[in-house]
Amino acid sequence: MKLTSAIAARTCSLTFEHLSPQALWNAKLAILDTVGCALAGAREPVVHTLLQTGGLNTLGAVPVLGRHERLDPLCAALVNGAAAHALDFDDVNIAMGGHPTAPILPALLALAAEGGHTGRQLLLAYVAGFETQARLAQSVNFHHYDKGWHPTATLGVFGAAAASARLLGLDEQQTSMALALCVSLASGVKANFGTMAKPYHVGHAARNGLMAALLTRNGFTASLDAFEHRQGFFEVFNGPGNYTPALALQNWAAPLDIVEPGIGIKLYPCCDSTHTSLDALFTLRRDHPFEVRDVAGIEVYLHPLRLTHVDRSLLRTSLDAKFSVQYCLARALIDGRIVLDSFSENAFNDAEALALMQRIHALPHPTPSLARPGNYLTELHIRLHNGTRLTVRAHSPAGRTADQPAPLESIMTKFNHNAAKALDTQAVATLSDTLMRMEQLPRAEVIGDLCATR
Amino acid sequence: MKLTSAIAARTCSLTFEHLSPQALWNAKLAILDTVGCALAGAREPVVHTLLQTGGLNTLGAVPVLGRHERLDPLCAALVNGAAAHALDFDDVNIAMGGHPTAPILPALLALAAEGGHTGRQLLLAYVAGFETQARLAQSVNFHHYDKGWHPTATLGVFGAAAASARLLGLDEQQTSMALALCVSLASGVKANFGTMAKPYHVGHAARNGLMAALLTRNGFTASLDAFEHRQGFFEVFNGPGNYTPALALQNWAAPLDIVEPGIGIKLYPCCDSTHTSLDALFTLRRDHPFEVRDVAGIEVYLHPLRLTHVDRSLLRTSLDAKFSVQYCLARALIDGRIVLDSFSENAFNDAEALALMQRIHALPHPTPSLARPGNYLTELHIRLHNGTRLTVRAHSPAGRTADQPAPLESIMTKFNHNAAKALDTQAVATLSDTLMRMEQLPRAEVIGDLCATR
Repeated sequence: MKLTSAIAARTCSLTFEHLSPQALWNAKLAILDTVGCALAGAREPVVHTLLQTGGLNTLGAVPVLGRHERLDPLCAALVNGAAAHALDFDDVNIAMGGHPTAPILPALLALAAEGGHTGRQLLLAYVAGFETQARLAQSVNFHHYDKGWHPTATLGVFGAAAASARLLGLDEQQTSMALALCVSLASGVKANFGTMAKPYHVGHAARNGLMAALLTRNGFTASLDAFEHRQGFFEVFNGPGNYTPALALQNWAAPLDIVEPGIGIKLYPCCDSTHTSLDALFTLRRDHPFEVRDVAGIEVYLHPLRLTHVDRSLLRTSLDAKFSVQYCLARALIDGRIVLDSFSENAFNDAEALALMQRIHALPHPTPSLARPGNYLTELHIRLHNGTRLTVRAHSPAGRTADQPAPLESIMTKFNHNAAKALDTQAVATLSDTLMRMEQLPRAEVIGDLCATR
Repeated sequence: MKLTSAIAARTCSLTFEHLSPQALWNAKLAILDTVGCALAGAREPVVHTLLQTGGLNTLGAVPVLGRHERLDPLCAALVNGAAAHALDFDDVNIAMGGHPTAPILPALLALAAEGGHTGRQLLLAYVAGFETQARLAQSVNFHHYDKGWHPTATLGVFGAAAASARLLGLDEQQTSMALALCVSLASGVKANFGTMAKPYHVGHAARNGLMAALLTRNGFTASLDAFEHRQGFFEVFNGPGNYTPALALQNWAAPLDIVEPGIGIKLYPCCDSTHTSLDALFTLRRDHPFEVRDVAGIEVYLHPLRLTHVDRSLLRTSLDAKFSVQYCLARALIDGRIVLDSFSENAFNDAEALALMQRIHALPHPTPSLARPGNYLTELHIRLHNGTRLTVRAHSPAGRTADQPAPLESIMTKFNHNAAKALDTQAVATLSDTLMRMEQLPRAEVIGDLCATR
């Protein structure tokens, strides 16, 4: 049996009963987190640019999250996908080496807006798409990632297609054809990171996956051996010897990838390499309360590989602030939290933070060999004026692995803050309630409607 | 200087005065040939499927060639690009290893439909796009081609973007950004050949190239080192050691690639491996006229590599007929020509052709070492009942290289036959006249208008 057909058979036969309570819980949290990021991302320049461009702003029935525009399904999938990833703050999946929900959810919300789908159906389709892209990731990563492909896009397109096919109720043959067509739609390289093209990639994947399902529903054809063909996905994208097709099927949905390795939630909207240090600071201060004025000095030790990303004691731009562990710690000390507003346009010019940064020193960890995979190792030393010395070592940020999930309270705080960028307090509360009981929704289109502004 | 900027600088500074008479002539022939193919391809199933699919059939001002629908620019570029390549009969370029005009022209016709552009501007933009994609091809081929990428799509997207940028009058910075974004839009693998996905790739490239130019006109950003970055086009698509960036700039436009290696025109709508044999047959018969009933037997010797494609004495489908050198020679003998109608739905069942095929034998050429690049070597032996023996050896089909161009009469015969699939005789004549004096057109939009049906 061809791989496309084998995957399609599994996608089509997944039922809601296969979703364990943990799978359902993770799915709802990932969707909530991504919706929050899209609401906060809706005013980013990339979204404005897409909405100004003829052919990408065709009017229709699908809400743009956090905005008043309603677009046709393909345009909405593109814009919502770009918005969801515009802040690079949405959920992550370790197997994929990327963001699992941003390419899938916009495709599903576009279909849901037509009506006729329940919350259960949307959740099932989402998990089917998640499993498809994560299993393909097992076949090609991390060579695929290291080589320079942007997996959120090049694998996400398959997730979007499988999820769309499931929600549309396509049969195995049509689902196979959609996946095969996506081999010719997969694109996006890391050279374009740091520009509008990065979030665009994600919207492109969402749109193309949805389009593939709509096309094959109408009889479009592609090659069923598009993955394993000698000029197909594995050979052309990864090259000889750099992939393992069998891993795409092995233990399919047992457990579901959304349970193991599961989802990660990014709790801070700044460079990943600062996150363990921020966790360490909040932990120390919770256990040993002190005021900012008590601080005599701070030393933060990072793995040398990560130190190069975030050792930035001089700031020239707001973006610099996101990549400065000194600024992030100062801001966290002053405000007691790190949220989007911590990186406002004038952040790099904030006198109080700049003064405090003079007392914060970033250094290479003396024993980097202690680091676990990911090199997140950090050690924080705080000296207070009263002579107290506080020290903590941490190995990875909260929320990245199944055995160290982000606290629900932190996830909700993040969501509320993000969603408040577009919606009022009451609307944010209604939206989070609705998302967390999604499996009971008789009409999935309410999700999009609750995210639209007037 | 980054490669995107260097290419953009050359694209933006090309003027109509750089176009030699031969460049202009080749450009008009290539456009005429592609328009004819699109008119004939307009009723193919892939075009129907695209036009049935919501989001791909958004109404607008741009004509779909050979049809009554008018679509928005991006949708029209997609559909016209797919139609142009649906029959795999459009012009070719040796450096590219693909079809140079089908990804570019639909993007330009979409912009031209807005009005405000002359025929000269369209021709200049077309040549700028052609040069861009052909020069990038020099950098990456034929590893790029052999590996499994579909160059008409993965290189054509850059041609479409450069041409669109030129017609839109974008500046160097915007043109650079459009090319850089296309690194993240390039897609299409050969595993999907033989399905609707193949012509779809070409429409996808046309649409994406046009979209990139429209986006960067609106301020969209991408990385200016997207080609040479270690996770950029060359490394990710071709891999270390398999490309030569300098060739993209060396002797830019001196001469223009549309002059050398120039364009090839396919004269027969059947497998390439039959073409030299068909040329040989028409030559023999022109020089030594005979009737079908005179033929006692034919032996056709082909290079063994090409023989495997077309040695097909039993036909099950109409598609088989296109891949049977025996059928093609029989049909050519009976009708005196090979055109689209030679491969009608019932071709494989034609009693007269089947009877004649019994007397036609395909054999491996005994000295394949005589073959020139491309392995087109063929030898045709015809025995007549009166004892005459006619023999000819040919090395490549007419119309593929600059030093062996297709006769103008053959190109016009092909165009007239293709265009007649959609337009009446008078409209075909008006269209070919208009295309061959394109540089005099005050309004380029008339081209699309003349290709629209009512």
